[in-house]
Amino acid sequence: MGSLTGRYFTVMTFGESHGPGLGVVIDGLPAGLPIDLAAIQRDLDRRKPGQSPFATARKEGDRPEILSGLTSGGLTNGSPLAILIRNEDARSQDYAKTAGSFRPGHADWTYFKKYGLPPQPGGGRSSGRETVSRVAAGAVARALLAPLGVSVRAASLSFGPVRAARRDWDFAEGHPLRFLDPDLAQEAEAVVSGAKARGDSVGSSVELKAGGLPAGWGDPVFDKLEANLGRAFFSIGAVRAVEFGQGLALSSMLGSEANDPMGPLGPLSDRHGGVLGGISTGRDLTARLYAKPTPSIALEQDTVSLDGEAVKISVPGRHDPCLAPRLAPVAEAMCLITLADFYLRGPARLGGPAQP
Amino acid sequence: MGSLTGRYFTVMTFGESHGPGLGVVIDGLPAGLPIDLAAIQRDLDRRKPGQSPFATARKEGDRPEILSGLTSGGLTNGSPLAILIRNEDARSQDYAKTAGSFRPGHADWTYFKKYGLPPQPGGGRSSGRETVSRVAAGAVARALLAPLGVSVRAASLSFGPVRAARRDWDFAEGHPLRFLDPDLAQEAEAVVSGAKARGDSVGSSVELKAGGLPAGWGDPVFDKLEANLGRAFFSIGAVRAVEFGQGLALSSMLGSEANDPMGPLGPLSDRHGGVLGGISTGRDLTARLYAKPTPSIALEQDTVSLDGEAVKISVPGRHDPCLAPRLAPVAEAMCLITLADFYLRGPARLGGPAQP
Amino acid sequence: MGSLTGRYFTVMTFGESHGPGLGVVIDGLPAGLPIDLAAIQRDLDRRKPGQSPFATARKEGDRPEILSGLTSGGLTNGSPLAILIRNEDARSQDYAKTAGSFRPGHADWTYFKKYGLPPQPGGGRSSGRETVSRVAAGAVARALLAPLGVSVRAASLSFGPVRAARRDWDFAEGHPLRFLDPDLAQEAEAVVSGAKARGDSVGSSVELKAGGLPAGWGDPVFDKLEANLGRAFFSIGAVRAVEFGQGLALSSMLGSEANDPMGPLGPLSDRHGGVLGGISTGRDLTARLYAKPTPSIALEQDTVSLDGEAVKISVPGRHDPCLAPRLAPVAEAMCLITLADFYLRGPARLGGPAQP
Amino acid sequence: MGSLTGRYFTVMTFGESHGPGLGVVIDGLPAGLPIDLAAIQRDLDRRKPGQSPFATARKEGDRPEILSGLTSGGLTNGSPLAILIRNEDARSQDYAKTAGSFRPGHADWTYFKKYGLPPQPGGGRSSGRETVSRVAAGAVARALLAPLGVSVRAASLSFGPVRAARRDWDFAEGHPLRFLDPDLAQEAEAVVSGAKARGDSVGSSVELKAGGLPAGWGDPVFDKLEANLGRAFFSIGAVRAVEFGQGLALSSMLGSEANDPMGPLGPLSDRHGGVLGGISTGRDLTARLYAKPTPSIALEQDTVSLDGEAVKISVPGRHDPCLAPRLAPVAEAMCLITLADFYLRGPARLGGPAQP
Repeated sequence: MGSLTGRYFTVMTFGESHGPGLGVVIDGLPAGLPIDLAAIQRDLDRRKPGQSPFATARKEGDRPEILSGLTSGGLTNGSPLAILIRNEDARSQDYAKTAGSFRPGHADWTYFKKYGLPPQPGGGRSSGRETVSRVAAGAVARALLAPLGVSVRAASLSFGPVRAARRDWDFAEGHPLRFLDPDLAQEAEAVVSGAKARGDSVGSSVELKAGGLPAGWGDPVFDKLEANLGRAFFSIGAVRAVEFGQGLALSSMLGSEANDPMGPLGPLSDRHGGVLGGISTGRDLTARLYAKPTPSIALEQDTVSLDGEAVKISVPGRHDPCLAPRLAPVAEAMCLITLADFYLRGPARLGGPAQP
Repeated sequence: MGSLTGRYFTVMTFGESHGPGLGVVIDGLPAGLPIDLAAIQRDLDRRKPGQSPFATARKEGDRPEILSGLTSGGLTNGSPLAILIRNEDARSQDYAKTAGSFRPGHADWTYFKKYGLPPQPGGGRSSGRETVSRVAAGAVARALLAPLGVSVRAASLSFGPVRAARRDWDFAEGHPLRFLDPDLAQEAEAVVSGAKARGDSVGSSVELKAGGLPAGWGDPVFDKLEANLGRAFFSIGAVRAVEFGQGLALSSMLGSEANDPMGPLGPLSDRHGGVLGGISTGRDLTARLYAKPTPSIALEQDTVSLDGEAVKISVPGRHDPCLAPRLAPVAEAMCLITLADFYLRGPARLGGPAQP
Repeated sequence: MGSLTGRYFTVMTFGESHGPGLGVVIDGLPAGLPIDLAAIQRDLDRRKPGQSPFATARKEGDRPEILSGLTSGGLTNGSPLAILIRNEDARSQDYAKTAGSFRPGHADWTYFKKYGLPPQPGGGRSSGRETVSRVAAGAVARALLAPLGVSVRAASLSFGPVRAARRDWDFAEGHPLRFLDPDLAQEAEAVVSGAKARGDSVGSSVELKAGGLPAGWGDPVFDKLEANLGRAFFSIGAVRAVEFGQGLALSSMLGSEANDPMGPLGPLSDRHGGVLGGISTGRDLTARLYAKPTPSIALEQDTVSLDGEAVKISVPGRHDPCLAPRLAPVAEAMCLITLADFYLRGPARLGGPAQP
Repeated sequence: MGSLTGRYFTVMTFGESHGPGLGVVIDGLPAGLPIDLAAIQRDLDRRKPGQSPFATARKEGDRPEILSGLTSGGLTNGSPLAILIRNEDARSQDYAKTAGSFRPGHADWTYFKKYGLPPQPGGGRSSGRETVSRVAAGAVARALLAPLGVSVRAASLSFGPVRAARRDWDFAEGHPLRFLDPDLAQEAEAVVSGAKARGDSVGSSVELKAGGLPAGWGDPVFDKLEANLGRAFFSIGAVRAVEFGQGLALSSMLGSEANDPMGPLGPLSDRHGGVLGGISTGRDLTARLYAKPTPSIALEQDTVSLDGEAVKISVPGRHDPCLAPRLAPVAEAMCLITLADFYLRGPARLGGPAQP
């Protein structure tokens, strides 16, 4: 239970870290949409491990195979689009070392309590590798939304105490940590390499921008844009806090400071992050996702074995010392999937804007 | 669209600020649950306006009428529980003054873009009054969960720059601002009365605790406990940031600081807020919700009329100068509704724990 | 559980036979649709008991009160439309006589096994009175679909052994049994009055036509038009068989007889009832619903008491001797609700037909 | 849209007749259920073409590959079970001959109107081959329900005018047409071979029995057992009529004949087919599905080309002359999937029967 999302752009993912593969089935795509395998590959590559000295060295080709949903000409045909990505480099021996005890900060213990099963190799379904399916689905959502001018991008905002003071999105895309601030990039790198050198990891955060969103997306009450995005973002394992617009800072402002004044084309400023009453204003949507440090660390920690005996654990293997660089494409994917679901809803009013 | 939530404890709400009434229909309740009208009233009263010098003076009886779903003995009978709360004190004249222009910080403009309709009296569906349905549903969820020992409470954590340094939950429940810290209560009151006196409003936040949760609630991937709670919390109009456990602070920690060490009964500390891998650990769940200031302020603001003419607006009427005190019971309700939906899922494993 | 239907035109009903009232909440209606209370009343009146010598004498005003969802000008405003119909003439004393035992052919026994509760007065949620909510929702769906030229009507096709040989829809609408065939009307009446006079009841059936349906409604695999209509029709208590087009007769034909030849505008004949591959062809959709006799009869039957003692039961009270006349408007309603749900789906292809 | 079913035992299928493969993802399975690949293969083999002189000669290995969801010991692990069946023998050349025009009785025309695409090879998603995914899912549902004693079987009831007078289920399982009546088997065979010899096809029907069902499955109003089964059965392409219990025959009975008398353990007879008020009584559930003749016939038929020109068409290729023998395992699968969805719902009452 839990691997289904979306009512209109309906996404079901499957797969485990060390099983035959991972994948996604998307139902609800309109027919006639060109799907470019290279574009999916590009998004998968952005998420892929082993891209920089800071990232895990696991080598995965992450080649998507499309199992259904396309015409021979590469257009969606109205039936479910299924994508399979086979696992290639699953080193179970690394995990064998920790298999007998519960890794702190991981889902081992809660899965054990819920399912009555010992931890699966590599975390099984709870592994970060699961997000490869999301990124594949996000790439399809991106293809659907791009013709409308909707674009979504995310990059690293902070590592430990170092937080970007300015945003250079082009710089970020080329930087090994995807960090937004060129001026502070060296400091950010130092924080990350320091943690890595000590066998430790460090927390980080990501900023996300969705541009080109028309006014009117999102629904009142439970399906507010932030509500469904909030669910999407908190469904990413390591995310512990989410904010929209000026977010947390709004909670210490006065009303006269916080309200965006209105002009004939909507709000004149962006404190609310492109959303009012849960519905897009037409301005850029901004969100920030705050992630805990990678829970897998080489440093020795206290835990218990499956039998409840106190033991020491050191989690070997190929782990990123921080999550933001690979969280960014996953956050984009979750945002795109969520926006696609709003986009494909029927019209909100008679005579309203035609759908795609 | 958007007024439905939950797959197992299924909740549909309806109603507008100035219509005949508001209500909720709940499907999925097991039969045989005693429903105490007084308990629903108690939760409605905690949300009700007009309770303190700081709250809006709108007078609503908020008397729930149960339209269906109970046996003559007051037990749920397996069919939908429907609750209606009639509007009594809807002063449309207050709203008439601002009807011709878009109130800053409100949904007037986005609803206009989405539905093609001028702002409804009192905000219509986008009014905070809509949350009365949620609180009624939450009271029913509370009745369902209480026999398991699950309890949920929320109180005010901050007003503007004043943030509680310690938590006294009993004090909070009796305090007119529901503020958690008796030592700082006067400062918090001063912030709020100051804003009110100036015709302004102020941001605030709420802390929520869910206790007595068994281990194993929540589902992998998209239905993580934080994901569905995140959606629930961000569906409350004014909420702009949400965090779980140590939340945002985790993003500047090291892994060796952030991981909760494990003991034979699960995590030994609470940095993750009672959840690992999206599934409850059995420890208390903690969340914090950060709300913007009340957007309705008497101070003059820049906006436009329905025709796009620049105008000045002052929003008269009975508005809370801050949202936390009434946000708290709504946050509780959304948490309870979400937990009830997890509780009523079928078993996660063969031979697993029996349901209610 | 079970009172929710539709993903786009989402309908939740509530209410019991002898409770305060029945109702429905509809989410997903586009804004700007005029809702005419008189039109809803007209459909409710067509379903209402007490309209002819053949129908139950229960007197219900069945006055719909709209609780939310309309502008002051009577247009839908994008928020849920809630309709309440209060019970007025619930004679519990009639039911008191049979309360201690399980009425044959009724849901008393299965509800008892499922919910652990003795039969509720008048059958509670399992009463045919429940369908009043469906008819109200159907009237709203009718208002949504009428501007497209979609019309749905149903009338009585058979009573016991008497089956209409021809269809006169205007005659049917005015006939007390809503029977389609003027030539056989007297025979049909005789069957029904005969059963009534003997304290018995008789089976019947209904034919339904949906006209004006554009080609392309319905979805492959699980959401075929007939699939969702099949669910809708079998959700009506007494329906035991459903067929589309030439239905059952197709199962004894040859392929060369059964296939509708194709012309440039689609099928040239109607053996498949306006649907191919689960998707509308643009021709009229035809369905037939076969209902068992009214289970409540005055004739003595064998049953058991709540304690399992064998007893004789005679079900007094005001019961229709046959169901078709009142089944017809309910079948229309379920068809309309289902069609509205298909209508409000997003576009099936890029550049496809604009929605309402 | 349309390839998702079930709220608790959630099934998403994908794949087209001539694409890389077909498959299914199932979410909601409790952990700890042994999945036997041989049992899935057995059900797939029962549906497989090429098994008898009467069936299409297409040769498909139909080997299921499990992509995720199992522990190394073959138990479900709580995450989605994904099954892939690759296409092996897709002879597109057969279809090339008819690709330029709309095959009568097929979905070519409606898909064209809906998706704006010319007919896909072999019918694409509308091909009967799509049902292989359902049978795989049904086999998993069977494994889930078998330990409860629930068993589901279906066999051929009629071919053209020849209808079984008695039921010999063991005989049927071994008979090439899966026909229920040994005495009439030769006549049934003659009907089918006669049609085949003439290049024609013939209609047929199937009877289904679900035994061992506990009392209390099914939900009031829209989720009645027959409602969800009706949707499931009508989602099978060729099915044009469905009945439960004595079905259509009940519509010409008297109430005194139709009501099953009640004993201390429920109904004493089976006219209602094991269901009352949409909820199982604990007796066997019976349904009958009536299918049109195979639409693909060698005999020449009138149709139009994609450009709307009148043309003659003869559909060559490997087609079954009748559908019942292969419909039977698909009907079983759809019944099993539907029952599993009811089984996995939460409890209907406090202190109710524990789940698996």
